[in-house]
Amino acid sequence: MLLPEPIQNLITALSRLPGVGPKTASRLTFYLLHAPDEVANDLAAALVNLKSGTTYCQTCFNITAAGRTECEICANDSRDRRMICVVEEPLDVLALERTGGYTGRYHVLHGALSPIEGIGPENLRIRELIERVRAGGVEEIILATNPSMEGDYTASYLRQQLQPMGVHLTRLARGLPVGGDLEYADQNTLLRALSGRQEMS
Amino acid sequence: MLLPEPIQNLITALSRLPGVGPKTASRLTFYLLHAPDEVANDLAAALVNLKSGTTYCQTCFNITAAGRTECEICANDSRDRRMICVVEEPLDVLALERTGGYTGRYHVLHGALSPIEGIGPENLRIRELIERVRAGGVEEIILATNPSMEGDYTASYLRQQLQPMGVHLTRLARGLPVGGDLEYADQNTLLRALSGRQEMS
Repeated sequence: MLLPEPIQNLITALSRLPGVGPKTASRLTFYLLHAPDEVANDLAAALVNLKSGTTYCQTCFNITAAGRTECEICANDSRDRRMICVVEEPLDVLALERTGGYTGRYHVLHGALSPIEGIGPENLRIRELIERVRAGGVEEIILATNPSMEGDYTASYLRQQLQPMGVHLTRLARGLPVGGDLEYADQNTLLRALSGRQEMS
Repeated sequence: MLLPEPIQNLITALSRLPGVGPKTASRLTFYLLHAPDEVANDLAAALVNLKSGTTYCQTCFNITAAGRTECEICANDSRDRRMICVVEEPLDVLALERTGGYTGRYHVLHGALSPIEGIGPENLRIRELIERVRAGGVEEIILATNPSMEGDYTASYLRQQLQPMGVHLTRLARGLPVGGDLEYADQNTLLRALSGRQEMS
């Protein structure tokens, strides 16, 4: 055991983060050792405040500041109540908001269905979504789960649940990414882009 | 501003780490939000204890537990006092120790000379190395700085300083990495492997 315990502890704690292996963890630890004290201290303070300072919106389950019952979007009366965009994670809300192209509301599932990982409907905010729709006033639901196996499975499960309720269901378009190169597009994306081809206007 | 402040603060603090961009920082932040409380809390505690719990060995400047004046290697009488291996960082000590092939002592410079970044001999533990050699008893110094421009420059600066002191200077061999593929070796490595070719024994 050549490393002093405080260093080994930090390496262990950093290694528990996703995408951080033991090598990256030691590199970060030794960086912090040389860096000004406030780099490590600010990070420690931010970590401690993370959960105590945040909560979930009781309507859409997006993340919001502690003490609020609704997030900024749900509290904003100018956002269209007739549209709900269903996403997997709060980061997806952020990505869609950055486009500036959506004026409706959101619903954050906090994950996707995954029989392999044992994530069923009861682990996600699906019941709460159905209740929101049942409460009325919703005309269109955009199923914006990830274009992955789990995301697609979640979307088709939601379709089964929501279709009988008479709400208009849509999903995000699949196709070539803007700025992408046809030559480098994978086979599935190209197939989707072909079958979903649009009229030149 | 859609993200609550505690989340934004953690993203900012993580983004200051080397190799962590804003995207990785948000991914880690949202991971920590979902993870059990102790993941973030253990990390915060380890960060706070990092500097208070460690210090530098007053002989070789390797990192060691607070309250000690010498690291485990310097305190170990079975380590050969006649050999000093000069490295840039404490992590290099660890890498060499893992090989199990070195029984001498170390000297950690805490960086390499870099005129571009304004790092001169006075910013490294070079004066302390010269004092150790001057104190006597050292027969061989292995210059194990990185095989980079700064590392090579540091090694040749040290050679200038140490050669007049009559100590035997060596450096780590350059050549093909074990398990590597000749075909993929870069030109410089291959050139070094060729010029440094060894007799078949």
